[in-house]
Amino acid sequence: MSLRGVGADLRCRCIETESRRIGRLIKKVEMFPPSSHCRDTEIIATLSKSGQEICLDVSAPWVKRVIEKMLANNK
Amino acid sequence: MSLRGVGADLRCRCIETESRRIGRLIKKVEMFPPSSHCRDTEIIATLSKSGQEICLDVSAPWVKRVIEKMLANNK
Repeated sequence: MSLRGVGADLRCRCIETESRRIGRLIKKVEMFPPSSHCRDTEIIATLSKSGQEICLDVSAPWVKRVIEKMLANNK
Repeated sequence: MSLRGVGADLRCRCIETESRRIGRLIKKVEMFPPSSHCRDTEIIATLSKSGQEICLDVSAPWVKRVIEKMLANNK
């Protein structure tokens, strides 16, 4: 269900991640590198309309594509 | 000086961006895709120790490398 957990700084933020593609517009993507509190990189997308936060699967190819597209989108 | 602006939702967040490499540890990277308020993708890094927020130059090769490294770091 890809929920973002609470008490974010003492453990991993993501309990589960979403591997299916998000078709809806993304307002923001947050990336947290591995730290002493969480050994995995965590990526959390905030949706434009609902403001809902969704943990993304770092290893999913579509996630990588979304981020690469954002990097390329510097007009 | 790559500062993050205030009133973030009505205009671009970054007034200037940092193109030089940040040697210090990054706690979080936020990516904002282009929107009606800002036509550029914006990337803001939060430093681990100081919590300082720094706007990164999306077109700088080292920025792309940092993000690609984070994507690959899923242990």
